[in-house]
Amino acid sequence: MRAAVVTDTKFSVERRPTPQPGRGQVLLNVLRCGICGSDLHARAHADEMADLAAASGYDEFMRAEHSVVLGHEFSGEVVDYGPGCRKRWRPGTKVVALPILRESGKPQLIGLSPAAPGAYAEQVVVQESMTMPVPNGLSAELAAFTEPMAVAWHAVRKGQVGKGRPAFVIGCGPIGLAVISMLKAAGVRTVVASDFSPRRRDLAAACGADVVVDPAVESPWEAGPKPRIGGATDLLTLAFDTMEQLRRIPNLPWWYVFRAAGALGAAPTGPVIFECVGVPGVIDQIIAAAPPSSRVVVVGVCMETDRFHPALAVNKEIELRFALGYDPGEFRDTLHMIADGKVDPRPLLTGTVGLAGVANAFDALANPEHHAKILIDPGSGALEP
Amino acid sequence: MRAAVVTDTKFSVERRPTPQPGRGQVLLNVLRCGICGSDLHARAHADEMADLAAASGYDEFMRAEHSVVLGHEFSGEVVDYGPGCRKRWRPGTKVVALPILRESGKPQLIGLSPAAPGAYAEQVVVQESMTMPVPNGLSAELAAFTEPMAVAWHAVRKGQVGKGRPAFVIGCGPIGLAVISMLKAAGVRTVVASDFSPRRRDLAAACGADVVVDPAVESPWEAGPKPRIGGATDLLTLAFDTMEQLRRIPNLPWWYVFRAAGALGAAPTGPVIFECVGVPGVIDQIIAAAPPSSRVVVVGVCMETDRFHPALAVNKEIELRFALGYDPGEFRDTLHMIADGKVDPRPLLTGTVGLAGVANAFDALANPEHHAKILIDPGSGALEP
Repeated sequence: MRAAVVTDTKFSVERRPTPQPGRGQVLLNVLRCGICGSDLHARAHADEMADLAAASGYDEFMRAEHSVVLGHEFSGEVVDYGPGCRKRWRPGTKVVALPILRESGKPQLIGLSPAAPGAYAEQVVVQESMTMPVPNGLSAELAAFTEPMAVAWHAVRKGQVGKGRPAFVIGCGPIGLAVISMLKAAGVRTVVASDFSPRRRDLAAACGADVVVDPAVESPWEAGPKPRIGGATDLLTLAFDTMEQLRRIPNLPWWYVFRAAGALGAAPTGPVIFECVGVPGVIDQIIAAAPPSSRVVVVGVCMETDRFHPALAVNKEIELRFALGYDPGEFRDTLHMIADGKVDPRPLLTGTVGLAGVANAFDALANPEHHAKILIDPGSGALEP
Repeated sequence: MRAAVVTDTKFSVERRPTPQPGRGQVLLNVLRCGICGSDLHARAHADEMADLAAASGYDEFMRAEHSVVLGHEFSGEVVDYGPGCRKRWRPGTKVVALPILRESGKPQLIGLSPAAPGAYAEQVVVQESMTMPVPNGLSAELAAFTEPMAVAWHAVRKGQVGKGRPAFVIGCGPIGLAVISMLKAAGVRTVVASDFSPRRRDLAAACGADVVVDPAVESPWEAGPKPRIGGATDLLTLAFDTMEQLRRIPNLPWWYVFRAAGALGAAPTGPVIFECVGVPGVIDQIIAAAPPSSRVVVVGVCMETDRFHPALAVNKEIELRFALGYDPGEFRDTLHMIADGKVDPRPLLTGTVGLAGVANAFDALANPEHHAKILIDPGSGALEP
């Protein structure tokens, strides 16, 4: 089979032997594979990411010296099973799979480890237990969006937005756009999106953002719905007003006033903000500009050391929830949301290339004015991005 | 009346006219007032704190040039009422109050603003709506702990620990000790406390910590209960094991396996960690050393710019909840928990001084080997701390 292999930041299309599915594993023909921001980063800064993964307890992440087949956002069709499989799906069945594989008893990240080659290739091996059939005749193209949309779905669930609370999406790259789509699919009433790039702002609107802002011109916090509580003085005033109003109610015991004020007015909730940029300084900017009691879901991955002001976060009672990946239930639900038409990844799809086009596609993705998500179709020739 | 007044970091005991309670306000004789870490900071770095408060939306915080009466952790007895009060309590009734006052319609922080003098004085004015009587014959000494213990109670509630999840308290100054006491009052089974100071470790044990660690000798993470999930590889292995076990159940549909795995095994919860140090670098150390899915409640206030590694927080799905103050219900509940003997602040009380002893007390509090909480008794002479 043919595969796009990266070694020390350079791509080459190589012939490799057909991979052999091991115990409990399935061989797939790759139909489509998305290029992820993590792939871009892994190509350029593999050692840095490997150190970080090791610090988090995973020490098999790819390094620059390895020759690795990237690709963890894929759809494919069943070709063959290894031993010990339940063989639930006929050969030719269209499937997606969580990109984790068990090799010699150890879990490996497919497409980000030399131990588990990914789907920038004609074929890929996956774990049967992590595989699921694509329903409703969904196309291989849209099925390949399951993985990145699951990342967004996990972030949205982690944000616990609720329909009435406004959501702000800072940064409208592929993950920001996926978050916008998932917020609207979840029924969130007001989604404010912010990006410096005109192209990405257009895509944000296409994904359903209700308000789209160029932060060079206008603050997203001004453009969004006015928060009930703009700062500490508002907060204290609310506490006073609540207490004074409650104590006017005849025969209400004083202690009940305190309990009720605690429950009612004293703990207002700010918006939920999705940080989808991942460069140093953005978290601190959000802490400085966001209303009190904001919850920030950090989805963008800032690889550098970052600086922030904890005292300001304390004064505003900010909450930072760092989000990674998804669980199997979220992955499954995402596939079905796409297949049922509850969420539409099509605005994100801006190009398709063959294996020989991968290097060019990586270059093209560096410019936000052109692309959001590029898919690889290993069956096609060298399409340009 | 006499008051300890701070101007540009210097204390002096001054005679001031008896304060006049305004509309809806009550005049109290101060019985006891605690010295808070914020007071220490406000004396030394008032301008910095004022800038920070202004950035959070409160622009009446004290500055170094102001002459201010500090003190927001107090108990007192009712002397007189201003106009428009309900006069619920007879003169002489022992009370505590939330330290916020309405002046010319604007809310002010009592003891941290020149507009609302605090309780380092023989008398203080409070808002009737924020006042509550001290129950069960509780002493004025212990009632004065309501405010700092309410800060800890708010932090513990924000942590949503649950009885079975272990809690780690990093830093055993007055707030760390109060958090330990409140965690045990809430029924948390295992509380691990960490501090470099032997004196504070003794106090942590006295407050009920189950495991007490000197971080110079032993890591709190090693001393505490072993987490189910030590790192990313454990997490992936758990996902595999869960999926493989579930799929062995006959007739369980594959999609149910995914949903159940999402609910069951894929989202484990790490410990809840209370950051009660508030110096640069501690949050990053916690992110680096804590198990995945840890929740960090930041109670210590780091005033400087801090550095951290967002990518590591993402990889571990850390959550940072910054905590400030309390709501009226939490304040009221704290008073009653102390009065009912459900929580005992006595281990925190290490000294009492008169107004003339305040400057010395501030110096003594700089050394963690001597004191935790010093109370001011404005009625007494110049007791040494």
